[in-house]
Amino acid sequence: MASAKLLVNSDLQNDRKRATFDVEKLTNFIDGGAEKTSRRRYIQNTAVNDHAALKLKPWAFRTREENYEAVVRKQVQVARRSKELGLNNQEISIYEETFQSHESNRIGPRNGMFPPTIEKQGTTEQKKKFLPLIQNMTLLGCYAQTEMGHGTFVRGLESTATYDPKTKEFILNTPTITSMKFWPGSLGKTSNVCVFLAQLYTQGKCHGIHTFVLPLRDIDTHESLPGIEVGDIGPKFGFKENDNGYLRVNNVRIPRDYMLMRYAKVLEDGTYVKPENSKITYGTLILSRVFLCVVIFVYTDSKSASYLCLDRGPEAQVLDYQTQQTKLFPLLAKSYAFIFVARAVDQTFNRINSQIELGKLDYLAELHALCAGLKAFTTDQAAAGIEVCRMSCGGHGYSDASGLPKIYVSATAMCTVEGENSVMLLQMARFLIKSYNKMKTGHPLKGFVEYLGNKQTARSSMTKNITLQCLQEAYEHRAVRMIEEAAQSLKKHQKLGLTAEDAWNLTSTQLTWAALAHCHAYVVKMFVSMVTTIGLDDNVRAAVTSLCFLYAVDGIHEKLGEFIQDGFFDSAQVDILTNKMVTLLSEIRPNAVAMVDAFDLPDINLDSCLGRYDGNVYQALYDYAKSSPLNENDVLSSFHKYIQPLRKMSNKDGELQAKL
Amino acid sequence: MASAKLLVNSDLQNDRKRATFDVEKLTNFIDGGAEKTSRRRYIQNTAVNDHAALKLKPWAFRTREENYEAVVRKQVQVARRSKELGLNNQEISIYEETFQSHESNRIGPRNGMFPPTIEKQGTTEQKKKFLPLIQNMTLLGCYAQTEMGHGTFVRGLESTATYDPKTKEFILNTPTITSMKFWPGSLGKTSNVCVFLAQLYTQGKCHGIHTFVLPLRDIDTHESLPGIEVGDIGPKFGFKENDNGYLRVNNVRIPRDYMLMRYAKVLEDGTYVKPENSKITYGTLILSRVFLCVVIFVYTDSKSASYLCLDRGPEAQVLDYQTQQTKLFPLLAKSYAFIFVARAVDQTFNRINSQIELGKLDYLAELHALCAGLKAFTTDQAAAGIEVCRMSCGGHGYSDASGLPKIYVSATAMCTVEGENSVMLLQMARFLIKSYNKMKTGHPLKGFVEYLGNKQTARSSMTKNITLQCLQEAYEHRAVRMIEEAAQSLKKHQKLGLTAEDAWNLTSTQLTWAALAHCHAYVVKMFVSMVTTIGLDDNVRAAVTSLCFLYAVDGIHEKLGEFIQDGFFDSAQVDILTNKMVTLLSEIRPNAVAMVDAFDLPDINLDSCLGRYDGNVYQALYDYAKSSPLNENDVLSSFHKYIQPLRKMSNKDGELQAKL
Repeated sequence: MASAKLLVNSDLQNDRKRATFDVEKLTNFIDGGAEKTSRRRYIQNTAVNDHAALKLKPWAFRTREENYEAVVRKQVQVARRSKELGLNNQEISIYEETFQSHESNRIGPRNGMFPPTIEKQGTTEQKKKFLPLIQNMTLLGCYAQTEMGHGTFVRGLESTATYDPKTKEFILNTPTITSMKFWPGSLGKTSNVCVFLAQLYTQGKCHGIHTFVLPLRDIDTHESLPGIEVGDIGPKFGFKENDNGYLRVNNVRIPRDYMLMRYAKVLEDGTYVKPENSKITYGTLILSRVFLCVVIFVYTDSKSASYLCLDRGPEAQVLDYQTQQTKLFPLLAKSYAFIFVARAVDQTFNRINSQIELGKLDYLAELHALCAGLKAFTTDQAAAGIEVCRMSCGGHGYSDASGLPKIYVSATAMCTVEGENSVMLLQMARFLIKSYNKMKTGHPLKGFVEYLGNKQTARSSMTKNITLQCLQEAYEHRAVRMIEEAAQSLKKHQKLGLTAEDAWNLTSTQLTWAALAHCHAYVVKMFVSMVTTIGLDDNVRAAVTSLCFLYAVDGIHEKLGEFIQDGFFDSAQVDILTNKMVTLLSEIRPNAVAMVDAFDLPDINLDSCLGRYDGNVYQALYDYAKSSPLNENDVLSSFHKYIQPLRKMSNKDGELQAKL
Repeated sequence: MASAKLLVNSDLQNDRKRATFDVEKLTNFIDGGAEKTSRRRYIQNTAVNDHAALKLKPWAFRTREENYEAVVRKQVQVARRSKELGLNNQEISIYEETFQSHESNRIGPRNGMFPPTIEKQGTTEQKKKFLPLIQNMTLLGCYAQTEMGHGTFVRGLESTATYDPKTKEFILNTPTITSMKFWPGSLGKTSNVCVFLAQLYTQGKCHGIHTFVLPLRDIDTHESLPGIEVGDIGPKFGFKENDNGYLRVNNVRIPRDYMLMRYAKVLEDGTYVKPENSKITYGTLILSRVFLCVVIFVYTDSKSASYLCLDRGPEAQVLDYQTQQTKLFPLLAKSYAFIFVARAVDQTFNRINSQIELGKLDYLAELHALCAGLKAFTTDQAAAGIEVCRMSCGGHGYSDASGLPKIYVSATAMCTVEGENSVMLLQMARFLIKSYNKMKTGHPLKGFVEYLGNKQTARSSMTKNITLQCLQEAYEHRAVRMIEEAAQSLKKHQKLGLTAEDAWNLTSTQLTWAALAHCHAYVVKMFVSMVTTIGLDDNVRAAVTSLCFLYAVDGIHEKLGEFIQDGFFDSAQVDILTNKMVTLLSEIRPNAVAMVDAFDLPDINLDSCLGRYDGNVYQALYDYAKSSPLNENDVLSSFHKYIQPLRKMSNKDGELQAKL
């Protein structure tokens, strides 16, 4: 074994020596500076040690019940350790990424949309009351929006909150089977309170969806309260440790001030007071924030998968196979693209958010469209890419020992959670069509749709010396064409007498394509701007630039028809692109391992026998196999229970019985 | 609830009334005749009742250990029932498809390549000795080929069998960690014997890979034998109920006549006798048979997924959304395509197999290439399509309650099992290049590559009246072009002085594309011939023909670049195809539900809360959730163990503690 290990290490080390750049410098760039790298490492190392101290058996060997308990235990530890270590929210996320890698079930102050909803929609008094209770885990909350029959379409929710002026209370109900809350994370067993979204009725009138604080369980005993039927919905593809829950509410009364009233209000007598600015429900903003988090989450998954597949010791030479390069290097490029685009959107989000806090809502719709579209675009690409990675490991990628099934089911969850991706793309498409029509009526565009107003050339001027500028133009040309064609198709259908809704439906496939083309152009643009403008080390820039080229060229190849059907590229240019692809693969080959090394992921993030720093994968697979729970006994009881009796029956029939 | 149920049924029933053809006639066509339909139904119904009698809890609620035991129990029942009912092998498969839907772990006589290897490679005496013992389950065998470090490349296996003429025995070993057998199905706990593939050494010489019968466990006690270290490899993405195993062998001796000696032989004194015809190891043939089974298996998965997604009661109206149609109808078309192509390949297989039994090996290479290529093509498409189906159900598709995660992990296993798909495509590509070069040197081609020699037109003559003939030509044109370009690229690299191996590697991505293009053309051709030549009912033919059009048009759209980069279709023709796509979606809409009804799948095949005949999905989801094992107790112990202590700690710090 020892010699195998040495061999492994030397293989990987040889590969590392071939890198044309300083890995540490790229790591610093990803982290946003050397200081941040060292802080991140400190937190990660702490998480690695804390995790080792728990001495848990491998994730896939635990039952769902054990996994649930393990994650509750971990979240309590996160709360304790983040206080001890003085971590801010972003740093807690770093800790969690290592300590609970690819696991869900955040509790209380860490649970997704629950705290920000209180913060953004609560009055000063409500925040003063609830937030400290959330911080000290007296309140363990979740965000109960989705109903069994109603997911993405919020206005369709059926739950009701009816104001009773006599007692100054709201009476909450889930009146039908389709209106029971279904899916909210941590609702089933963990939460003792939720933010409850319901149609508000007062003085005999429905005022649409509003948010309420609804106690679910007794704070001391954790028993579910009268009128509340709450439970776990059962195992899922991934995130099995999360108690996504269902909730039926039968005439449960809550005090008037449990409605979150920063904007809309119900007065004591039942009078409904509209928000000053109807746009400002902030629901959209919170949702956009969630999409952004998904985009960030997803690059974490892509990163892990590409790291895992490229950094395998004994298989390093497999990277010389072109078919492997064709599968893995584009995902490596995507991982970098998504890191950079997430950073760009994060900056945009913060900029627009501070304007919104000052009451300027001009960019809210744009921000939402951007986040919704990118959520769909990046999650689809990442999930598909991770499966390619997994299969590139052959049979071993199918084993839970590889860690890849766990990474995939985490990533693919993001394609349907918080809004199914086609619906998200159509939300972006709506904004694009609106912008396009505005531009057509002479209004100049700003922000991320500005390019729609630029003059387009009908043919690409690309030569053998392909430039990033040329590729970016190709993406914008394609997006403009596809948005234009969708807009024309909409008009055509309406001219034929169809309603706007029917015209929209008959164009919807085309609209999702247009939205994807737009997102693709946006990601290319962000990637290009990241490698061209920042003060980067020359060698790092050269290496990352190759990836940027690969991202753009591979994307064109994937959707070649869309780039050439109007003749934008001619046959000769397509050949140039195909040759460039082959050149890029060879160019990236010596840097591939260093490129994933730069992610600087500790082994525990991957939780994999294949992706490990020591490269000793075969010993790891063997150790893992030996510890499989099925191996606790050499002979299992099913042999005596089922197989022996059958054999005896067969023998009664007079058949042969013999020993080998 | 009752009213909801009625509503549901009427929705689905309305949809069924819209069908333009007689569902029963299509079902008969799929089954191969009305008599076969009725026999199939009899077997399925028996399986449904037998399954209900087991009273098992839902699949996803069982632990892996429980699932293993359940499947052993089921397989014993399969053996018993198939005898009682007098089922032939094909009929047992029907029974299993329902009784053990999307579950693995076949035992003894049903376990994959184990029985056919004995049958095809054993001498008459060996067959006489082993086969009855397999039939009565005295021998529970598996096929131990794959090693930890060696999957698809059989010649690279490291296990050894060294003949000892003194004792007339073979000494078997797995000398390194990478040579331990790893992955064989049922090896870990169930099998008491295996077919063991190893490098044969005799008289100091290695004669390559041969097959041996190796006892693993005591037949009576089932304890593992001396020198044998055998166990389960741990849980996997899917097929968790299977005890895929690992095996280390340390100087285990077996008698000389435990080597399967129908072809190659080792005489008593250790003399090695080559097979008369070196091609005839039959390994290739058995492997091709396996690929064919995979193709058949995969259409079962596609069928289930498309059935499940299209036949959901309360969501029938969702099918009016164009984005849903764009996702689901192409998979419906693929399911039909794969049913027909599997049937065609099955017929080809049987024809060529009987020639081979007569000693005519001319078509063995062709058969293997065809099966290997189609295995890769259909499994990739099916797996990706099933994920699209799953996500088209939104969040609910992510729940194990939907059944879709289970179907996906079954289907995706097929992409890496028995040979990773890229390697399979390269095997086909090698045959294609060989055929192409043969044709270029003036030898006419026969069989499934015949079209390579046909005259190709540079431009499609397709008009608005698209014909299937036109589409088929487009597929063949594209395949010829891509095979030609790959062949030229190989030559170019060799002219530049590269070795054949390096040239092959630098062209390998292109070669896989060429192989895919060929498979695609083959499937289209089989689908077209199925809808055009057989004496079908007119209405059924019309309905299936729409699907055939959709399959072909959608495939062109998916890979549009490959069809237009040489100008085969011009811009106007691309528009014609895009419009045709929209027309086809509307054409298929009224028949969509009937088309999946024709699969005639019992609910238990889908094992899903969403895909069910009564359409009462919400009640089913709710019932499923309520029975989740996490709900056995209202308050879980983790609350007292972890959350309460943390709260107490926080309070010590002087923070707020209060009740709501």
